[in-house]
Amino acid sequence: MSSSTPIVDIHTHIYPPSYIELLKSRDEIPYIRQFPPATEHRLVILPAEDTPSTSRGRPIGPEYYDIEQKIAFMNTHSINASIISLANPWLDWLPPTTALQTAHSINTEINHLCSLHPKRLYFFGTLPLSAPVSSILASITHLTTLPHCRGIILGTTGLGTGLDDPSLLPIFTSLAAAQLPIFLHPHYGLPTSVFGPRGTDYGHVLPLALGFPMETTIAVTRMILSSVFDSVPELQVILAHSGGTLPFLAGRIESCILHDAHLQKEGKLTQGRKTIWDILKSNIWLDAVVYGEVGVRGAMGVSGTERVMFGTDAPFFPPLDDEEDASEKQGKEGEKEGKKWLSVSLNMDAISSACGAGSEEEKAVLGGNAIRLFGLELPVSA
Amino acid sequence: MSSSTPIVDIHTHIYPPSYIELLKSRDEIPYIRQFPPATEHRLVILPAEDTPSTSRGRPIGPEYYDIEQKIAFMNTHSINASIISLANPWLDWLPPTTALQTAHSINTEINHLCSLHPKRLYFFGTLPLSAPVSSILASITHLTTLPHCRGIILGTTGLGTGLDDPSLLPIFTSLAAAQLPIFLHPHYGLPTSVFGPRGTDYGHVLPLALGFPMETTIAVTRMILSSVFDSVPELQVILAHSGGTLPFLAGRIESCILHDAHLQKEGKLTQGRKTIWDILKSNIWLDAVVYGEVGVRGAMGVSGTERVMFGTDAPFFPPLDDEEDASEKQGKEGEKEGKKWLSVSLNMDAISSACGAGSEEEKAVLGGNAIRLFGLELPVSA
Repeated sequence: MSSSTPIVDIHTHIYPPSYIELLKSRDEIPYIRQFPPATEHRLVILPAEDTPSTSRGRPIGPEYYDIEQKIAFMNTHSINASIISLANPWLDWLPPTTALQTAHSINTEINHLCSLHPKRLYFFGTLPLSAPVSSILASITHLTTLPHCRGIILGTTGLGTGLDDPSLLPIFTSLAAAQLPIFLHPHYGLPTSVFGPRGTDYGHVLPLALGFPMETTIAVTRMILSSVFDSVPELQVILAHSGGTLPFLAGRIESCILHDAHLQKEGKLTQGRKTIWDILKSNIWLDAVVYGEVGVRGAMGVSGTERVMFGTDAPFFPPLDDEEDASEKQGKEGEKEGKKWLSVSLNMDAISSACGAGSEEEKAVLGGNAIRLFGLELPVSA
Repeated sequence: MSSSTPIVDIHTHIYPPSYIELLKSRDEIPYIRQFPPATEHRLVILPAEDTPSTSRGRPIGPEYYDIEQKIAFMNTHSINASIISLANPWLDWLPPTTALQTAHSINTEINHLCSLHPKRLYFFGTLPLSAPVSSILASITHLTTLPHCRGIILGTTGLGTGLDDPSLLPIFTSLAAAQLPIFLHPHYGLPTSVFGPRGTDYGHVLPLALGFPMETTIAVTRMILSSVFDSVPELQVILAHSGGTLPFLAGRIESCILHDAHLQKEGKLTQGRKTIWDILKSNIWLDAVVYGEVGVRGAMGVSGTERVMFGTDAPFFPPLDDEEDASEKQGKEGEKEGKKWLSVSLNMDAISSACGAGSEEEKAVLGGNAIRLFGLELPVSA
């Protein structure tokens, strides 16, 4: 580490070894298996990916489960600290009877991985959502005992019917009380039908580029409309991929609320109502995984520069080939442990362009905001 | 008109009287009917709206079909000229045998309505998409003979399977040759299932605020991925609602393309490829119907200030009640013909905030860009 700007990656995934074994033991998605004649193991997590083709799932190498590879990746990109999280599909698919124990075991395992690299690794825990609410609450209590835990990662289905489900309120209340923010992350995307009969001609572009961010946007909008943030005003939610599309659509959502005859009739348009603009500035945080200056500006525009945080989405979106990324040629000293990833440099460049290179705003987004929100201690620079 | 800044509304709808009669003659969506004991006529255009509830469709009054009401609305908001378009669902649902004749008749009728208010009204024509391609091409030829026509309005289904359908290429080529831009507008939204079991609790907010812009984004992204803008480089497409969410997601889409192994294997990632950034600046125009400063900034950020144009989406989103909108109290003289609409002032304020009040950029977005693109002659200010 030679950079004077601490860099914190709040969006970076891992499948700990025991989770890999779980996935290998399965024969329906999500699963990991070989597709002969190929000998590599491939991870298939979405129904749309589970078809015989050159793009069936994705190869799964040690970058998915080896914590030393995470550290190497961090060193390559001058990332001082990472908040690692279990990648989707998390634990939603577990049998209710084993879910609590599996969550306990996996959260403990990830906490242990963090302890191997003190101050460099923290984590978002995972909840046993298929278990009874009392077990989910017990799991939150367990997370508060794990010293490296800084929040939880959550998908969009909640207990099965989405995050506007009133049954989730005790869980949201418990998370807010424990000061554990939610990292809301997509997994299911949109029904394949919306991408049309030629959707697979474009590889994974449509589900990844559009389905994922739209899923997140719908999920958080349903939370807003069901008044979650009025019921649990202290709840803090970090949205993956800069909120999906929430920053851009916030104005339209608020206008549609203000013009909705049904909501008016139901007495929902009262003066004291928390508007979407209020919620964006008091309950929402956004990662800066949006791959463009316009997106970063939009994120900062709605939630404030102080609520936007750098992320990489690694190990997803590795470089396609061994060619050196152009940004590598301009690399600083001390970054020679590997080749930089295009997906990371796109996000770093976007932050730099939107904030101004070397500005206080850039420092805040790259690391300062995460250090403040999560109370991180960082390693002394080497 | 007393404003020194010409204002042009490029997104404003009408159902001409003959189309209203067509809809009244039908008994499945789209249709217009009374729901006793209520005596008002209501328009139901979406399956999700076609359920017994307080929000079944929407009341349809003269603001939907009376051209004099359009002029009064324009006067209220100091709009000098409007490019009116048939509102969804257009003509997609017509029997193939009558589609060409109906399109001919409706386009002629709208052209006549424009001629009643010279230089104040222009229009986007509608194509008979259920007819054979040769009939669609004949309809384009007809539109070139109508002096007030300035483009066509198009939904996202095209000939039935979306706008990435190669069968559309002769139509796109013909439109580009005739210098008729496409105004791409959503209608179907997303499958209701994505909004969850409580979706209707929130009135029409989820389908209108999220379904519509997501539909547009998916449709134009499919056009981009299928290389329409390489095949027809002169094609100009104006996207409703500031591109849905395209400006915010452009970076993610481009990154997903650059990281897609399937596209690489298919040889699609060549150096000469038109990137999404190229397309946004040479083929795409965006209306400014996005109800917030962040959205307008995003639209201008990706396509340039010179490709963003004011619109109202009227007669949709009327004020919910008779209360005067706050912006009315600051109204200028000569705007006393009616009360201003909140939905319009949200968009005007957003443009003003994003561009700077009184700036050249604001003038360009409010009217200058539309005057240039469509070659409009405007009335002399009163």
